[in-house]
Amino acid sequence: MKFSSKAEKCQYSPMRKFHTYAVAAEEKGRSIYHLNIGQPDIETPEACFQAVREFDNRVLEYAPSAGIPELLKAVQGYYDKLGIHYDTDEILITTGGSEALQIALNCILDDGDEILIPEPFYPNYNTMVATCGGVIRPIPTTPEEGYHFADRAKIEAGINEKTRAILITNPGNPTGTVLTPEEMHMLADVAREHDLFLIGDEAYREFVYAGEPLQSFGSCTEAAENIVVIDTVSKRFSACGARVGCLISHNRELLGLAMKYCQCRLAVATLDQTAAAALYSVEGDYFAAVREEYKRRRDTVVRKLQEIPGVVCQCPKGAFYLMAALPVDDADKFQQWLLEEFEDHGETVMFAPGEPFYATPGKGKNEVRIAYVLQQEKLERAMDLLALGIRAYQNR
Amino acid sequence: MKFSSKAEKCQYSPMRKFHTYAVAAEEKGRSIYHLNIGQPDIETPEACFQAVREFDNRVLEYAPSAGIPELLKAVQGYYDKLGIHYDTDEILITTGGSEALQIALNCILDDGDEILIPEPFYPNYNTMVATCGGVIRPIPTTPEEGYHFADRAKIEAGINEKTRAILITNPGNPTGTVLTPEEMHMLADVAREHDLFLIGDEAYREFVYAGEPLQSFGSCTEAAENIVVIDTVSKRFSACGARVGCLISHNRELLGLAMKYCQCRLAVATLDQTAAAALYSVEGDYFAAVREEYKRRRDTVVRKLQEIPGVVCQCPKGAFYLMAALPVDDADKFQQWLLEEFEDHGETVMFAPGEPFYATPGKGKNEVRIAYVLQQEKLERAMDLLALGIRAYQNR
Repeated sequence: MKFSSKAEKCQYSPMRKFHTYAVAAEEKGRSIYHLNIGQPDIETPEACFQAVREFDNRVLEYAPSAGIPELLKAVQGYYDKLGIHYDTDEILITTGGSEALQIALNCILDDGDEILIPEPFYPNYNTMVATCGGVIRPIPTTPEEGYHFADRAKIEAGINEKTRAILITNPGNPTGTVLTPEEMHMLADVAREHDLFLIGDEAYREFVYAGEPLQSFGSCTEAAENIVVIDTVSKRFSACGARVGCLISHNRELLGLAMKYCQCRLAVATLDQTAAAALYSVEGDYFAAVREEYKRRRDTVVRKLQEIPGVVCQCPKGAFYLMAALPVDDADKFQQWLLEEFEDHGETVMFAPGEPFYATPGKGKNEVRIAYVLQQEKLERAMDLLALGIRAYQNR
Repeated sequence: MKFSSKAEKCQYSPMRKFHTYAVAAEEKGRSIYHLNIGQPDIETPEACFQAVREFDNRVLEYAPSAGIPELLKAVQGYYDKLGIHYDTDEILITTGGSEALQIALNCILDDGDEILIPEPFYPNYNTMVATCGGVIRPIPTTPEEGYHFADRAKIEAGINEKTRAILITNPGNPTGTVLTPEEMHMLADVAREHDLFLIGDEAYREFVYAGEPLQSFGSCTEAAENIVVIDTVSKRFSACGARVGCLISHNRELLGLAMKYCQCRLAVATLDQTAAAALYSVEGDYFAAVREEYKRRRDTVVRKLQEIPGVVCQCPKGAFYLMAALPVDDADKFQQWLLEEFEDHGETVMFAPGEPFYATPGKGKNEVRIAYVLQQEKLERAMDLLALGIRAYQNR
């Protein structure tokens, strides 16, 4: 049988590709510090589980395709507090931010159409764009410049007659970059001027560490028709397993097309929507505590990384990731070696090798993404293991 | 901004397209009997809610991309009881049967590739196939022949060099047709001989009313590499809102490609997988009772329909749907009229108009799909409303 050429071109997740090596290492008795995946260890607020326990419908029915009213109102209320107003029919609840993004891309990209994305970027964007037959054109950055991409000339250089959209992850995954309000308005202006969609993947909105107010491209009202916001409860409430996100836009034509895909997959899980609606009742002090915790972790990781000779790493401003260039020939080989050959007191460490975060061939080979999703002392130990690993790998 | 031509070509769900008219009718005080959507009224087994209440992980984490081990084992055990064995890594848990189907199609269909589907078919197949750039080639049937399609010559007449797969819903939605074991092996043989995938959408497996054993294309071992089974807990356990399904195959290459899509959307909702695993502990007497209930409902609907002058309707053998040809010019207009103009003692009725279930232009215009998902006396009343509605519509 023949398979789809698009499917064959897609990649496996670099965060999950070393899973079998990790299992093998664990079977040998190794203990692994997982910095490879963005699974926070923060407890999910109790409101989530309480809502699920109190669910009292005797039939677990389909929810409406656009989402349950309680959740739509909760999302609306959340944005109102940020000073950004959406009608509830400008919000479509999706199975995680992932589905919101896939639906948005399905609505926008035809075969051969291009989408501009700063690189390094979240590797699942590759599969999502390939599914629509689209092509990613990367906006290049460097580790030395802290992966800064928000430069009008740099962005406009990538726009041609096939370009349909710009996709920005802000705060950034994998880089942790955070845009200034001026940079956001510049991007909105570029989108408006070139008649492009500006898709803001804002999964990490709450994770900013300089005391700045929470941001969204939704506040760029000068380009309201161009902007699509992708959101999720996954990181905000440490509820990744709920798989509840949303697609938000003032563009009614886009919403109309997106609804076709929402109807096609029928609905998002009913219990999880109920839980997500309850999560939006969580108060600001929860976020303040979480933010403080991640800020400490970030500072620890950056300090320890910058102590390792040959590592290039700028302090990231948001999310809970950072990219770093390591003094190794190939981060992929290094990761495999860490799982198969290395151990210190029975322990080793995992990160996500950098190459799959790039569209430009050859870039990112010596870079890694580190998710600082462990407690302070575990992070310290993980960074020590990385330093020991690098030294041993260089001297092997 | 330009939109994707594929998205523009997709349709809205015919089951959900009259939603706004229904809301308007309800606002006028009308009570509506909903036969338009396959949402069973049967209570979800308590095991589902109990499992959710007992969930005691403090972090609602991502599940593995392929599914949680408990659920994989539960699905494996269910098939073992049918005499069909799969390794757990031949099962991928998906967000409903819908996602399983979309992933399977993504893996198989390239732009312009064809897939054979008996018509009338579940309309969401249109969007799913269009998303891959594929084309549906219908296997034609007629209401007078009870929508029978399993004829080798008829099927082979539709196969050409672009054909990649045959998709069969068995038991059938919308027609309620059920294949004989001989017909299933014939289809498997056609797939093998022509090097095609045979995708069995078997969401309604338990809903067969002639005392026959439960069937699956998975038992056609002569074409093991060709067969892909799509399954779901939605109808089996009246748990549509859980959005838990699976993709099953012995074809390792297909599974490998499918895993790329599973990783791209990260995971299926954790709580719902836990609930689904618990549902598989439900015993056979649950199914016997549910089957008896639906059989009674089917008999009622068919009897009442056949009493209406001019209706063409064969008694369906499975699922909880039937297609019928009505003595009206246009079922779409008739539905709108039923919601806007008609009422009897403040009540009216909804079904799904037939045309969107066909790929052949003009077919199905006077047909409807009826989902017999209401209690006996409600169904009786709904059928009376349909009969009254037809008479009034003809005389308007």
